[in-house]
Amino acid sequence: MSNKYVYFFGNGMAEGAASMRELLGGKGANLAEMTSLGIPVPAGFTISTEVCQLYYENGRSYTDEIVKQVEENLIRLEKAMGHELGNPDNPLFVSVRSGAAISMPGMMETILNLGMNDETVVGFASQTSNERLAWDSYRRFIQMYGSVAKDIPHHDFEEILAALKKEKGVELDTELDAEDLKELVSRYKELYKRVKGEDFPQDTKVQLWGAIDAVFNSWENERAIKYRQINNIKGLKGTAVNVQAMVFGNFGEDSGTGVCFSRDPSTGENVFYGEFLMNAQGEDVVAGIRTPEKLSTLAEKNPEIYRQLEDVKNRLEKHYKDMQDMEFTIEHGKLYILQTRNGKRTGRAAVKIALDMHKEGLISREEAVMRVTPAQIDQLLHPMIAASDRKSNKAIAKGLNASPGAACGKIVFTASEAEKEAEKGEKVILVRKETSPEDIGGMHAAQGILTSTGGMTSHAAVVARGMGKPSVVGCKDVVIDGDSCLISGQSFNKGDWVTIDGGTGEVFAGRLNLVPPAITDELKEFLSWVDEIRLSAKRKNCPEKGFKVRTNADTPEDARKARDFGAEGIGLCRTEHMFFEKGKIEAFREMIIADSEISRKKALEKILPLQKKDFTGIFKEMAGLPVTIRLLDPPLHEFVHMSHSELEELSMTSGIPQDVIRQRIDALKEQNPMLGHRGCRLGITYPEIYEMQAEAILSAACEVAVSGESVIPEIMIPLVGSVKELVYLKERIVAVADRVIASYGATVTYKVGTMIEVPRAALVADKIAEHAEFFSFGTNDLTQMTFGFSRDDVGSFLPDYLKLDMFEVDPFASLDTEGVGQLVALAAQRGRNTRPDIKLGICGEHGGDPSSIEFCYKTGLNYVSCSPYRVPIARLAAAQAVIKNKDV
Amino acid sequence: MSNKYVYFFGNGMAEGAASMRELLGGKGANLAEMTSLGIPVPAGFTISTEVCQLYYENGRSYTDEIVKQVEENLIRLEKAMGHELGNPDNPLFVSVRSGAAISMPGMMETILNLGMNDETVVGFASQTSNERLAWDSYRRFIQMYGSVAKDIPHHDFEEILAALKKEKGVELDTELDAEDLKELVSRYKELYKRVKGEDFPQDTKVQLWGAIDAVFNSWENERAIKYRQINNIKGLKGTAVNVQAMVFGNFGEDSGTGVCFSRDPSTGENVFYGEFLMNAQGEDVVAGIRTPEKLSTLAEKNPEIYRQLEDVKNRLEKHYKDMQDMEFTIEHGKLYILQTRNGKRTGRAAVKIALDMHKEGLISREEAVMRVTPAQIDQLLHPMIAASDRKSNKAIAKGLNASPGAACGKIVFTASEAEKEAEKGEKVILVRKETSPEDIGGMHAAQGILTSTGGMTSHAAVVARGMGKPSVVGCKDVVIDGDSCLISGQSFNKGDWVTIDGGTGEVFAGRLNLVPPAITDELKEFLSWVDEIRLSAKRKNCPEKGFKVRTNADTPEDARKARDFGAEGIGLCRTEHMFFEKGKIEAFREMIIADSEISRKKALEKILPLQKKDFTGIFKEMAGLPVTIRLLDPPLHEFVHMSHSELEELSMTSGIPQDVIRQRIDALKEQNPMLGHRGCRLGITYPEIYEMQAEAILSAACEVAVSGESVIPEIMIPLVGSVKELVYLKERIVAVADRVIASYGATVTYKVGTMIEVPRAALVADKIAEHAEFFSFGTNDLTQMTFGFSRDDVGSFLPDYLKLDMFEVDPFASLDTEGVGQLVALAAQRGRNTRPDIKLGICGEHGGDPSSIEFCYKTGLNYVSCSPYRVPIARLAAAQAVIKNKDV
Repeated sequence: MSNKYVYFFGNGMAEGAASMRELLGGKGANLAEMTSLGIPVPAGFTISTEVCQLYYENGRSYTDEIVKQVEENLIRLEKAMGHELGNPDNPLFVSVRSGAAISMPGMMETILNLGMNDETVVGFASQTSNERLAWDSYRRFIQMYGSVAKDIPHHDFEEILAALKKEKGVELDTELDAEDLKELVSRYKELYKRVKGEDFPQDTKVQLWGAIDAVFNSWENERAIKYRQINNIKGLKGTAVNVQAMVFGNFGEDSGTGVCFSRDPSTGENVFYGEFLMNAQGEDVVAGIRTPEKLSTLAEKNPEIYRQLEDVKNRLEKHYKDMQDMEFTIEHGKLYILQTRNGKRTGRAAVKIALDMHKEGLISREEAVMRVTPAQIDQLLHPMIAASDRKSNKAIAKGLNASPGAACGKIVFTASEAEKEAEKGEKVILVRKETSPEDIGGMHAAQGILTSTGGMTSHAAVVARGMGKPSVVGCKDVVIDGDSCLISGQSFNKGDWVTIDGGTGEVFAGRLNLVPPAITDELKEFLSWVDEIRLSAKRKNCPEKGFKVRTNADTPEDARKARDFGAEGIGLCRTEHMFFEKGKIEAFREMIIADSEISRKKALEKILPLQKKDFTGIFKEMAGLPVTIRLLDPPLHEFVHMSHSELEELSMTSGIPQDVIRQRIDALKEQNPMLGHRGCRLGITYPEIYEMQAEAILSAACEVAVSGESVIPEIMIPLVGSVKELVYLKERIVAVADRVIASYGATVTYKVGTMIEVPRAALVADKIAEHAEFFSFGTNDLTQMTFGFSRDDVGSFLPDYLKLDMFEVDPFASLDTEGVGQLVALAAQRGRNTRPDIKLGICGEHGGDPSSIEFCYKTGLNYVSCSPYRVPIARLAAAQAVIKNKDV
Repeated sequence: MSNKYVYFFGNGMAEGAASMRELLGGKGANLAEMTSLGIPVPAGFTISTEVCQLYYENGRSYTDEIVKQVEENLIRLEKAMGHELGNPDNPLFVSVRSGAAISMPGMMETILNLGMNDETVVGFASQTSNERLAWDSYRRFIQMYGSVAKDIPHHDFEEILAALKKEKGVELDTELDAEDLKELVSRYKELYKRVKGEDFPQDTKVQLWGAIDAVFNSWENERAIKYRQINNIKGLKGTAVNVQAMVFGNFGEDSGTGVCFSRDPSTGENVFYGEFLMNAQGEDVVAGIRTPEKLSTLAEKNPEIYRQLEDVKNRLEKHYKDMQDMEFTIEHGKLYILQTRNGKRTGRAAVKIALDMHKEGLISREEAVMRVTPAQIDQLLHPMIAASDRKSNKAIAKGLNASPGAACGKIVFTASEAEKEAEKGEKVILVRKETSPEDIGGMHAAQGILTSTGGMTSHAAVVARGMGKPSVVGCKDVVIDGDSCLISGQSFNKGDWVTIDGGTGEVFAGRLNLVPPAITDELKEFLSWVDEIRLSAKRKNCPEKGFKVRTNADTPEDARKARDFGAEGIGLCRTEHMFFEKGKIEAFREMIIADSEISRKKALEKILPLQKKDFTGIFKEMAGLPVTIRLLDPPLHEFVHMSHSELEELSMTSGIPQDVIRQRIDALKEQNPMLGHRGCRLGITYPEIYEMQAEAILSAACEVAVSGESVIPEIMIPLVGSVKELVYLKERIVAVADRVIASYGATVTYKVGTMIEVPRAALVADKIAEHAEFFSFGTNDLTQMTFGFSRDDVGSFLPDYLKLDMFEVDPFASLDTEGVGQLVALAAQRGRNTRPDIKLGICGEHGGDPSSIEFCYKTGLNYVSCSPYRVPIARLAAAQAVIKNKDV
């Protein structure tokens, strides 16, 4: 350890720097940095984190040397500010704040207005000509010091305040006048004496050391220890303590306070943007009692201060190379900068600022790409609630933010109502307990979907994300009862307007104004930079150059949309959605209830031309790009939810009595459908289904190929757990495929591969890769089986798990790299061992999640695949993964 | 390659030996070996497997050298036997058989009676004075040679035979006389000429080479190739061909044939045991037309031959060091041994023979232990159907052999009937579609259980095995309809007698006689050898000496039984079974439907003393041995199947309206209960349940400890998937445990550990082991989740999977070492890395399966745990694992 314990900053000079974060804490290092840059920061000093460590080592006390250095620096501070701590005629007030190397928001203590006592309060009152302000500052100091440094329950102070207000017959603190506040100070001091057995300290040095103790003590309080445990923060020496002069924007008309941004945080325009109030403190701006003025007014009213502020802004932006959000105070005509940080911004602004800053030569292209978050891109691609409406309306309920974007419409409670109303041109929100495959039509017709149950990967959530349809799910405050519902106790009938925000999970009553998404030229340019980085990536663990983004798309329309969004192929085309369509589901049901292979084949023959047509459309849209088609996956019972008339019709067509059909359907029911007769298990018990699908895929591919387009079909077998399953099915598929290709005389090359979605498949991936030409990680199922819980059933314990912080991440939203990720990495490595050029991709929900995308990049996958609306987000996340991981 | 291609054996001299299996095939090597031992084997020669390889390399032809060597050896053979191939006056007949290094039963070809032609048949007839036999042998040869060597469909020969029988008005082949058979030979020869375009070969050399070709060709026929693929037989050169003299037991009254065992295969007594028939061929003994005589008769009738045979027996047993099953033929007073092999035996005989042979100095103690299969021990521990009754009764249906042993009783269809009838002293068989936890009482009361659905790990199967109760499950031919059922179409009413054999899965109508199991002194002695080996085992990957066997037991009774069977502790005590008992289930249901933590705790307080009593009993029975108790595991909805009156009562006791109770119960339903709210997830949402259980366990342990017995409780948390779950629950359990121990002032040390049963737990086992003091592999769930299918739902595709040979083994019966085993091994290794002395065990169904036990031994587990009745089996399997794996 050094024997320098205290670091001064002030008057353009600082002993610390941004690089000394570990020693000075984040806040201390930044204050030093700003000071050195010549930014007018109120002077102060930082007691280093080493002192915190020594404090604990020495039984919570300080060495003489430390005490000496603090007192020396206090004198420097007094000189720098021209005020003196405890001097009634010219009092200095300071703040005492914690600040560790890693930010721990809300965990540790702050004391303001230190230096107030019975004498300085009077001096302050005359200095500011504001007696009320002075006494209010004093009583706040007693309250903060008493509760923070001396463990007097905050509640006790609040009780005294409440009693006084009652006596005075007022409701708001602000209605108490100076005399009232003097009385309050006196009562607070009584409380202090009663609890602590001594008078409230009038000696400002005693106050200072008490506050410093309080900050160091807070490092080891229960909350902070827990916080570090939970967030796995280890190896820190402790917190630093920042003692800094208070400055006041309310010293009169030559004083003021404000907030400003170096560029417009809403549009990204390079204009200086902000608000201020003269003769006011920061909290006045926040409280909204007075209306702040625009920064341009300051330029008129006080051009010198404005010039200084503009200069500060320019210096800070140039230094931090990012848009800055600054707080400033003017005290007696002198400008102080209290804080600067990288400013929050809208998606639109983020893109514009990134582009501009690169063009201005401030940042590199890679830095520009890192400056926009995937969530900001997401924002740009969906309608939002107009800012004004958001301000003036409060959400009445909150569920899970399942699919981003805002939507408003009239409430309907069934899918068929949704379709009927939409046909009439009505905008509707489909409100359901949960959704199922039969609701697809209604979900499509609706503006958005709101469900009362289900999680982030419930049917409603997955399908809505796939459609790019705003959706709030698992909103427990919604209770549906026939043709009406209660939302947080408020009654809504069919036809009532409601607005949802799928990006936040909020539900609003009524019809709010929405702002449509804008795909600007700026976004296009930005994404072109993204792709340049993404597609030129080279990795040791992947033989192919670049990191691709494909899409999950089941229809030609989705395929087209995704291609517009930049998809480089289809990573998952689910064929079962096709079966749910009118005209196909009837034949498929005939197939399901058939009592022999012959009648099954007859039913499948009806479906064949229909499936072929679907594939033809998709191949055309994706000409030149690979299309991975997954053969039938879900259990058959999902297809046989029938109305009575449908059952009658099915009985007529098939010639099978209704009760026999009912028996067959009953026999399909399973205890654990997720672990039942589905995926390739269907292909093995009914090989004719997969043979029909292979025929449909290859006939479509050949027709499109013969017409001159390039087709790259990839046939994917789901739920494989052992190599024998794959071998058996591949043999049959290849036989059909080769026959079809020969019959067309076409040259179509196709691949046969498999999903890796049951844990066992990952474990035997080396053997599976002997026969599979590609792997696609189905991380939804893989997550469910690796954790041993189904996404349909987590509802009963997930809330407790989240409350108790049992998950590092929600494993359905972001790939669990600790557990599930091991299986993905193992399978990737073993697959490549057997077949070095095996194509590896991911098609689970995680394919659109930025942190999962980074994991996929590091693990050597060739591509990720996600829903069309997430493709631009995935492109950005992929590029950022490339930048962050140069060494893989 | 050598240039010796043909190896002679005969007259006490052989060029080959048992060690030359690769070159001579299994059969050829053994014939050579027996010959060298001086056993009178009919002479012959073996054409080596290298010739097979050359045959294919040379386009299915032979070099001159090979032809020369075959012909030279034929001459040696003729000399040795004193007969000549093709010599009408003194004809030699030979068999030509395949024989590879690895046995491929039924895959390749055999031709008998080679050497028969129009002339030799006449000579044979006069030699044997049996014209019918001679012509029958000839027609059989044509048929065999024609179909095997010349691809004439076997069916064509059968048609001719059938037509002739019709002409002659007879039904059996044996009713055809010599003239008929002459006619048959003539028609066979016509068929041969019609199909092959040439006469049936009269040249016996041509016959010989044709037969040799046929055997070599059969190596590459489709069946054989498939067989080698399926059984993963690789690296063989081909098959050898054995040409051996035929000998005939039907040359007259100085000839005969028989079968004998070197010891009694039924009791194991060291007595020479067998049967024979004079003037007969082997097939006559098998056909059962004449009644064979006992071997003792041969000693009287022909003491010289008997002496020779006894001498052969002694030499063979001494040589092979195992009980031999021999076939012999006497031709004109000369004894020939046609075959010897290790004899099949009953469990009782296996144990006795093993003990005796070690005591006789024939085999080592380890060899003795290897001589008895675990299945033979199993046989000894269960009643069996009396041999006579088994012979005279045919099974009417067959299901899965879920729990061994035979049982008979009157049919009942409900658990309550079973209990009622059993109370009256009636023996009953409980026949159900499937069973559920409420049926436990009835299952206990029944002699055996028969279900129409479910697999090897269905509830019925698991519980029955746990109880040691005979059970046949998944018997599809049983259709239950109220108070009667159809079994394979035959109608049975309540009260009708039925007998089941849980060891074979067979179901018999009526009441068959059963033989009770005998735990003999021999078995005890044998098991003491077993334990000596098992408990002295040392392994590199396990710090503890020995390989232990514990039991899965939920009651004091089971614990006592298991301890009698040699269990060294309890590896799994399931607490949920306790909750199903009358007096507890009511309070537990109150807990489930409680609407607050307070009322939940109140209900739990009622259960606490009851649980404590259960544990006290178990700890007493297992004094001095570890007892692993698993905290509540199954989903709550399993406990709330209630009758109307139970619901009423619950509503009364709890003060909660019935419809509210119904709603709460409905809310517990899950889509995939296996992947739902169960195991430690219950402990996390309702910590008070696990706290109550910890209190019950430790109070019981302290009371027993205070009374002077030693208790070793191990508290096991189920379904852990991440370390945070374990940490959270362990903290609570330890707090309760330490409080209880302190309150008793007892010294009880306990462990807290976890199941490893979700794949993720295995993957993060290193982290879990930081907090878990033991792992117990729950391989039932681990198998289900790793494969992604539930044992309740495999019924729909498992039959096809088994038919198509998709599994190497049934993963629920025997641990899937290729996939699931990887996770077990990984977790074991990672667990030991973190905590070298961590106790590792297995408590899934596999804990009682011999091949899984061997895997557990090799993987370094400290113990296996299985149901009480499997403990002796597991002890043997464990000792055999130790012997087979000296180097782990």
